[in-house]
Parts: sequence; C-alpha cells; structure tokens
Amino acid sequence: MRTLDYADGTITMIDQTALPQEETWLTITEVDDLVAAIKRLSVRGAPAIGVAGAYGVAIAARHHDPSTDRPGFDAAIDKIRHARPTAVNLAYCVDRVAPLAIDGGVAAAEAEANLIRDEELAASIAMGDRGADLIAELTNAASVRAMTICNTGGLATVERGTALAVIQTMHERGVLAEALPLETRPLLQGGRLTTWELQRMGAPHRLIVDSAGPFLLARGAADVVLIGADRVVANGDSANKIGSFSLALAAKHAGIPFLVVAPESTIDMSIASGDDIEIEDRGAAEVANVRGTPIAPEGTDALNPAFDVTPADLITAIVTDQRVVRVDRGEQL
Amino acid sequence: MRTLDYADGTITMIDQTALPQEETWLTITEVDDLVAAIKRLSVRGAPAIGVAGAYGVAIAARHHDPSTDRPGFDAAIDKIRHARPTAVNLAYCVDRVAPLAIDGGVAAAEAEANLIRDEELAASIAMGDRGADLIAELTNAASVRAMTICNTGGLATVERGTALAVIQTMHERGVLAEALPLETRPLLQGGRLTTWELQRMGAPHRLIVDSAGPFLLARGAADVVLIGADRVVANGDSANKIGSFSLALAAKHAGIPFLVVAPESTIDMSIASGDDIEIEDRGAAEVANVRGTPIAPEGTDALNPAFDVTPADLITAIVTDQRVVRVDRGEQL
Repeated sequence: MRTLDYADGTITMIDQTALPQEETWLTITEVDDLVAAIKRLSVRGAPAIGVAGAYGVAIAARHHDPSTDRPGFDAAIDKIRHARPTAVNLAYCVDRVAPLAIDGGVAAAEAEANLIRDEELAASIAMGDRGADLIAELTNAASVRAMTICNTGGLATVERGTALAVIQTMHERGVLAEALPLETRPLLQGGRLTTWELQRMGAPHRLIVDSAGPFLLARGAADVVLIGADRVVANGDSANKIGSFSLALAAKHAGIPFLVVAPESTIDMSIASGDDIEIEDRGAAEVANVRGTPIAPEGTDALNPAFDVTPADLITAIVTDQRVVRVDRGEQL
Repeated sequence: MRTLDYADGTITMIDQTALPQEETWLTITEVDDLVAAIKRLSVRGAPAIGVAGAYGVAIAARHHDPSTDRPGFDAAIDKIRHARPTAVNLAYCVDRVAPLAIDGGVAAAEAEANLIRDEELAASIAMGDRGADLIAELTNAASVRAMTICNTGGLATVERGTALAVIQTMHERGVLAEALPLETRPLLQGGRLTTWELQRMGAPHRLIVDSAGPFLLARGAADVVLIGADRVVANGDSANKIGSFSLALAAKHAGIPFLVVAPESTIDMSIASGDDIEIEDRGAAEVANVRGTPIAPEGTDALNPAFDVTPADLITAIVTDQRVVRVDRGEQL
C-alpha cells in the first residue's frame, strides 16, 4: 500500500496523526499545506518526509515558475526545506529536485521526485528480499515469528519500509507465523502504526508492551528480532528507537538473530563508534502523558532518551538495500 | 505515610484508583463497602489487601456479634475472603483474625488486626534497613541512583513497602541521589503510584519509559536496581512485574547489583524453579488501551504476560525482613 504519492500537482498522503482510529487521506496542492502537514507529523519517517519534500518542490514550481518568479520559488523551497530542521533527508531531497526545477521547470521536477519515490520503493523491496533470505538461512523455522519495534513500514517510507518490509516479504512468501510488534513508548508508533499496517497486509500479529519483549525472547516466543535504524556508524553500532538495546541484549541471551534493516543512506562512516553519538532527551511531557492523558502526578520530571545505541557485538547482521553485512562474523561496513 | 489504617470501627484508606490526579481518602464502616473497594482495586498490593481484610473481620464482628449471630458473621467473612480470589494473603489474614473474633469478640479481632498491621510495618522497616546497608556495602557511590519498577511502596503495604522502602530508607539516611522509576506498562503503577509516593517523601526522582531502563543502565545512569517480588521460589528464581527480567539482564551486563526485596512470606519453597511458574496472560485490553484511551486499531490482539521470571543467576541478593541471601555468592534460600 502506497502511503504517499503524487499526480498532476497534488500530493496524496495518509494522515498519520489520525491513525489508527481513522484513515484520513490528505490531498495537498499548496506549499503551505505541505509544510503544515510535515510540522504536525501527518507524515513522518525520514524517507517519507524526503519524498514529500521532493514533490513539494514540484508544487512550488507550479505556483512560482522559477524562470519568471525566482524569488517566489526560492522562498517556497526554503519553507519546505526547514519544515523539520533535523530531517537531513528532507533537505537532501529538496536540494536534489530544486536545481532541476530551475533548469527544466515543473516537468523536470516531477520526473526527479518520481525517481526519488521509485528509488525508495526499490530499496524497500531489496531490503525485504535480502532480509527474508537471510532469515531463511539463519533460522530453522519453517514459519518465522518476528519481533520488531517502532514503525519501520510503509508509513515511514512510501511503501513497505525497512524492517517491516522484511516481515511483509516473509508474509508474502507464506513463511511468517506471527509478528510481535512492541508498542514503543513514549509515542506508541508500534501500537498505533505498525499494528495498523500489519492489519492492512493481513499478517498475523500480537501487540506487546515494550518490557515484555526481552522476557518473551527468553521464553522462546520469537525466532528473530528485526529493527530499523536512525543511524549506523562505522564500527556497526546502530542508533535506533529507545528499547532496541534491550531487545538486542535479550536476543543475544536467547541465542536468536538480531537484524538491523536500513538503507545505505543511513550509514554514517564519519562517526567511529556509538559512544560518539549524542543521545537527545525529548523532555518530560511525552513520558508523563499518553495521547493527552496524564499518567503521572503533575510536575513529574522524566528522563526521556529518544533513541538508544545497540553495540555491534549484539548485532547479527546489518541488511541494507545493497548488501548484507554479517557483523557476527566480523564483517565490516 | 500510612496509606491504610483503622480506628473505632472505621477503616481509612487512600483510594488508589484516583491517584495520582486526586488524593481521595475512603472511610469504610461496612463489610460490603470494603469488599467493593478491594474489588475495584482502591486498595492493591498483597500486604495492603491482607491488612484491609483483617480489619474487615473486626468490622464484621461489630455488625454481627459471632456469639449471637454466627451465620451473619460467617457470611460476612466469606464475602471478604473472596473479594479477590487470587489474593492468598487476604485469605490468610482473614483466617488468622476470624477465630479470635469468634472466641474474644471485637476487641480480640481488633488487637490481632493491629498486630498484623504492625508486623507489616516492622517488616518494611527491616527490609529498608537491610537493603540500604547492603547497597552501602555493594556500591562505592556516596550518593546512590536507584532504578525500580512497578509500585512496591506504602501503597502496596501499609507504609514504606518493600523495594521502595529501601529507597525511602536511603533517602532518610541522606544517601539517595535519585530514584528512577519505570512507568510499568500496562497498568502504569510506576508512573501513577511510585512517582506519587516519591513526591510525597520528597525524594528526587525522574520517571522513565520501561524500554529506557536497560539502556540507561548500560550508560551508567544507576548504581543499583531494586525490585519487589510476587513469588520467590526454592532456587532463587523470582517472579515479578513484567519488565523485571530485562532490567536484571541489563544490570548484569552493566555490572551493577540487582536486588529482590520481599518479605519471607513471599518465598515459596514448594516450587523448585522458575520454569515451573505458569505465566498468566491478562488479555489484550490492558495493552490496547492506556487509562481508557485506545492506542491500537480496534480488534488488535495482544500477548500480555502479567509478570516475568528473573533467573537466580541474574540476581545479586534477595533481601527479606529477616535476612540477606547473597545469591551471587551461591547462598541458598
């Protein structure tokens, strides 16, 4: 299922803030509406934001022809580029499409944005295939039970995703026994989004609270753990959603494979090891409230690391759109 | 702070269902009101329920003098005894006080119930002292950062608690740098109740989501992990709130002590090992909803183990009201 697409000056995207209770589709024809959608997280996930930004350039070129209204075009591009200041992929995609719009107009911009979308989808398909092949090789299970965290599916990309693409591929191959998504506090992407995607694809699944994951692994409830990554650094250490580390530790303890599934663009060879990654703290409000309901006394302070770092020695393999790196066998990135 | 007490035919207890947003005190003078309070979890925690049941017998004897209305008394006792079918401690306390009511009337029942309350408090004080002494011995920290899960405080007993009693004792001794309570999904006893108790005692604390615990231990954020126990079996394996296992695994990985704090009555020598403990599944609703708010698509199934089992080889010591068992040194229960 394509969660984000474009045709004739209109971006169509599912509104992730309304999920899972409502499936609302947004149709966006104005730059300001796109910027607002990105800001309020109607679209999230680095690849999805990047593709949305690329199509945003095409929309900007439609409203402000760069050959006659360059200042208007540049101002619109600037707004899109800064809709999410920390989204490196957004700036990258905008910067890739904008020069083509200036040189070749709307048609050239649309062609490049479509290319980015297609590259993302091809990468997801490749990760799904490589991951499913590797799991077939690593486990003896005829039917695989796969644990995962956060949302790494089509909602975070344009279709299929990263770690969830592997689960989808196994489901399509008829070898998925069950997916076990963690709810993923504080923002509950697993409970809200991954379950919704699994339901849509008809894949058997049961939701679990985050703290149940490690124990269920110890009791043999899963054959493999699959996670995405925010960033993979030179020595193989991988930054991902908070909770990934505890799954990796428990997978090692249980003797089952722990796979990081991420596109090549996630690999950052400029950072030597995970110790050099600064852990962002996202503040107390997300912890002290669940979807607007307070769950702690007023004024409760919290420690809220947004992600954690899984050391390479707990990772079996890193699966990208181009290769499988067997970290457990000493292979280097 | 005493969360449950009795005087002149009236039980006073804090209504835990209203916490942490409201501090409501219930005054109970009728058996039916007590049974309703136990059923709706206004009082929870085995020791607290036991003491409430003991005082319930005194109230029953006031309304139905066993020497003149034995059938009425017996019927009332039966109601109290079965208010929570799985609460072994409730039946135990009721059975301890009822014969005294029959032989000696209201005064004898009240004296025995007071004794049970005082024994619980003395046990909490002893656990707090033994635990704090042990931590001083095990860690070099002048000021201790302690991670804990669930609610093991005065709300679960009548005052002070088990694992949280150790944290309170350290705070009173001036050696607590910070408590790090896990929110404890699915029922959020850590977020709702432990934070409230820590706030009341003026102890510095920061709330964390459950999945952040193991990673924060790996990054050196705590000096010790303290948990209570539902049941400790003969080989030292300990059943406790789901999430305890993942903390134990991470504490071992981080090289910091992991202490189980529980009264002697929690030790069940009739079970050889944790493998023989059946794990209750509490159903999907608790996982798919947070305090009444749905966090997953309608119809989402869940796997919801109510507790987990921490194997003895991940436990540093078991601290009871009577002794410290250094499991890490091979000491037996």
